[in-house]
Amino acid sequence: MTHNRYIVIVGCGRLGSHLANQLSRGGDSVVVIDRDHATFGNLSADFSGFRVEGDATQMSVLREARLNRADILIATTHKDNINLMAAQVARRIFGVSHVLARVFDPRREAVYTRLGIDTICPTSLAAGMFLAAVSGESKEEGGARP
Amino acid sequence: MTHNRYIVIVGCGRLGSHLANQLSRGGDSVVVIDRDHATFGNLSADFSGFRVEGDATQMSVLREARLNRADILIATTHKDNINLMAAQVARRIFGVSHVLARVFDPRREAVYTRLGIDTICPTSLAAGMFLAAVSGESKEEGGARP
Repeated sequence: MTHNRYIVIVGCGRLGSHLANQLSRGGDSVVVIDRDHATFGNLSADFSGFRVEGDATQMSVLREARLNRADILIATTHKDNINLMAAQVARRIFGVSHVLARVFDPRREAVYTRLGIDTICPTSLAAGMFLAAVSGESKEEGGARP
Repeated sequence: MTHNRYIVIVGCGRLGSHLANQLSRGGDSVVVIDRDHATFGNLSADFSGFRVEGDATQMSVLREARLNRADILIATTHKDNINLMAAQVARRIFGVSHVLARVFDPRREAVYTRLGIDTICPTSLAAGMFLAAVSGESKEEGGARP
């Protein structure tokens, strides 16, 4: 009743480490890559995956993470360019079938989509939630949503 | 068919400016506060609200934004402490009825809630979306979600 996939996560900040912990707990084999060794402190004690310290835009680092074996790559760093680079290399060179990336600039989403990369934009998500939370609080009757 | 509320937005970065533009377009009266004048460049040409340059943790700045008139305050800066401070002051001192804040550290959400502040955590939102996007891709039949 558990997953058993090989998942490479780029970036071990708040988002990356949270995903790594959750997916590892669910039975997936997880490898986390981060340039900053200190970020591995975000991983929980029961994290059973591997840590690779290095720059995920370097082929040697991606090879060390055995990206060729990966079912899924998730790029979660705070830099859109790094996420795009890692995601593209995963898709094109290592043939990873499912590639997802965090993207901060919503204008870049179209580019990612054309490259076969699924994107999630926290800013757009948060904006949508804020707008939903304040919608319907009109002073007028029957006010339209903004 | 439009809104007609008085909304104060703290922070004019990607999220704050997006909300300001959308809400202004929907007919709300919007005031945006930011310490950095350059961020006002994120506002669209048709933004019809006001810009207040200053530190939103200062009473004088909040008074200048006429926070006492506000129906809604939305704190969107990148700093949880600033968002919490502005949100608390809006709620307690200016009596703003609906106060929302972006919070990056999910562990702080409970504190905000106790203070009567609605929170939206982009990291949690993004994490939920990523987990949903990769769920069900189990190599085993009937794999449970992580």
